[in-house]
Amino acid sequence: MALIVQKYGGTSVGSISRIKAVARRVVRTVEQGNRVVVVVSAMAGETDKLIDLSRQITDMPDEREMDLLLSSGERVSSALTAMAIQSLGYRSMSFTGRQVGIITDSSHTKAMIERVEAERLRRVLREGIIPVVAGFQGISASSDVTTLGRGGSDTTAVAIAVALKADLCEIYTDVDGVYTADPRIVKEARKQERISYDEMLEMASLGAKVLHSRAVEFAKKYDAPIVVRSSFNNKPGTLVTREDREMEKIVVSGVTYDKNQARITIMSVPDRPGIAARLFKAIADANIVVDMIVQNVSTKTKKTDISFTVPIADAKKALNITREVSKELGARGVNMNTNIAKVSIVGVGMRSHFGVASKMFETLAKKGINIMMISTSEIKLSCVIDVKDTEKAVRALHRAFIV
Amino acid sequence: MALIVQKYGGTSVGSISRIKAVARRVVRTVEQGNRVVVVVSAMAGETDKLIDLSRQITDMPDEREMDLLLSSGERVSSALTAMAIQSLGYRSMSFTGRQVGIITDSSHTKAMIERVEAERLRRVLREGIIPVVAGFQGISASSDVTTLGRGGSDTTAVAIAVALKADLCEIYTDVDGVYTADPRIVKEARKQERISYDEMLEMASLGAKVLHSRAVEFAKKYDAPIVVRSSFNNKPGTLVTREDREMEKIVVSGVTYDKNQARITIMSVPDRPGIAARLFKAIADANIVVDMIVQNVSTKTKKTDISFTVPIADAKKALNITREVSKELGARGVNMNTNIAKVSIVGVGMRSHFGVASKMFETLAKKGINIMMISTSEIKLSCVIDVKDTEKAVRALHRAFIV
Repeated sequence: MALIVQKYGGTSVGSISRIKAVARRVVRTVEQGNRVVVVVSAMAGETDKLIDLSRQITDMPDEREMDLLLSSGERVSSALTAMAIQSLGYRSMSFTGRQVGIITDSSHTKAMIERVEAERLRRVLREGIIPVVAGFQGISASSDVTTLGRGGSDTTAVAIAVALKADLCEIYTDVDGVYTADPRIVKEARKQERISYDEMLEMASLGAKVLHSRAVEFAKKYDAPIVVRSSFNNKPGTLVTREDREMEKIVVSGVTYDKNQARITIMSVPDRPGIAARLFKAIADANIVVDMIVQNVSTKTKKTDISFTVPIADAKKALNITREVSKELGARGVNMNTNIAKVSIVGVGMRSHFGVASKMFETLAKKGINIMMISTSEIKLSCVIDVKDTEKAVRALHRAFIV
Repeated sequence: MALIVQKYGGTSVGSISRIKAVARRVVRTVEQGNRVVVVVSAMAGETDKLIDLSRQITDMPDEREMDLLLSSGERVSSALTAMAIQSLGYRSMSFTGRQVGIITDSSHTKAMIERVEAERLRRVLREGIIPVVAGFQGISASSDVTTLGRGGSDTTAVAIAVALKADLCEIYTDVDGVYTADPRIVKEARKQERISYDEMLEMASLGAKVLHSRAVEFAKKYDAPIVVRSSFNNKPGTLVTREDREMEKIVVSGVTYDKNQARITIMSVPDRPGIAARLFKAIADANIVVDMIVQNVSTKTKKTDISFTVPIADAKKALNITREVSKELGARGVNMNTNIAKVSIVGVGMRSHFGVASKMFETLAKKGINIMMISTSEIKLSCVIDVKDTEKAVRALHRAFIV
């Protein structure tokens, strides 16, 4: 008898008929001899609706209030899903993040899970009850409701799988698995059977929205296998697991893009030690994650430009912070470009293959696409380009490296 | 400096512009030198929307799941209201029922408040923060979310006013106060300046939906003054307070009606001791509140009919229970009538005035209205009639007793 955590995303519980379908799948899994813990996101569109309500009040909503507001969506879907399972004749109970002991830090709207106190969940499972957990949310030491950031329900699912030592964590979504590229852009894109945690991590952080990156980190740390699959069919999905020899033979396993970044440049800052630290500490203190950072070579004037990218949702906040720091430091000014995209190639095989970078630059150059920023890691290469060239770049890179 | 609890109902927070208006009123009260605790209901329509979703899954939703589902509405409105107050430049924080220590029993969907652990609320007020409390909800000993039944936000407000020893509890709604009758039915109906707890209690339990009856009981027990007023204007409203001499001079202070009752009759049950107890214990065990009970005089056959009324929402459940008990007891059968209404006259002056009952029966008889059941209390007289006669009866009674 296996213990399986099944996480259903927003479109999977997007309507009452979808919720009933989820209940049937859960019950089928139980009837096959497994124990199941269900984790649900808010019904599709609900979180956006709540965000829209808050925006009608203020551009800068208090993050503690945002968390109480947004956490309500998963409460609704978990209660409805538990009811749907009950109506199939099975015992089921819904639980909030607090009730299943998801204890987080107090970084509202992007809290980190500190521990999972899963006693109640274990007791409920022993009693033969199917628990349905409201994803995305936890509780801080001060007893306030926190949320884990967008896509945080994935993290809830993996954290619970790890806490319960589950055999498998299934992430149900509206796509069949992890593709070599976005199939809406690249016709030849195909589903991958297996992918390593690190590759998935790069893809998630690069904007392939199938799996939240913190969830993958969590799974990697505890070696918890994840399957990404569709709740709309019975296809097997993509297994995200430990890296092995087979995987290394493939140089590039995927091409991704991310249009949700903004580039901020602080111009002509004095080039002396501690400048970058001053800027990025201020930004980190505001809980903003900086992605790429590029600093130009210093000229004779001892002045330099620093460019960096942040998620577009944080851009306004980051811009304000940068402006303040800019004044303090006596820089010439700050500008922001939101019309950018990041295209990336990912693969564990890149470690042992040469010439991948030059081939990527050449491919983009041939298509007349200008590269604004470059960033590399062991298994990833990213270029920031003009947003209008995104689709052209992704297609060209897929053709060059995969098909 | 007074401490005022202001409770805003569903229509008062029914849209973002309404929520902004609430924030302005709260801030105005603070600027006049008061401290304010805000209690909010769910945005109008939200609770019904959630109930509708659950009905699409099952006719008999689990009550624990219902509570988690329904409690989400007040979380949304409290977070949005706190944001709106913040955006006017004041410090504000939203709190769930759990966070302000509303501890209830575990009767899901109609829980009773056992105590209020208001330490956090006191601390927040000391810090000059305006707390916005999600009404209608609490938490049970097993850490599960409970709700206080429809209109329960009134009870939250009064319970908090009592716990904090507030000077006043203002209940903001979409009417100007408590009228002598429903102004939609009776043109001459007028707003009452003052009304006693007992009168308000009878009116609330009789279907005058301005104030939840449990809230009034709570206020009466602790002698906490309540003002019922409109959030759509600045009229003074109706003060609900301790009874005094002046009030006794008025025989009938209001005429009310209730169309949300169903009558159940169990026919030809053996008339022996313990029969009624058996039936009403079974119904009470299901947490259903029985309103009127009429038992006919026993005939020679030693058989009797028992009729009683229950809220229409509980009618199906009560009917099923009654049918089971009926079989057990060897009764002839059970029937139910949902096309009934209860019309009532209320007034503390009734205690010291004679002939009120006969005048009421005469008034209805003159209009050709048949009386199905009668129920009396010290300060109230109710008749169950056919629902189609409701408006005619209310108008006739208002004319006979008030204008």
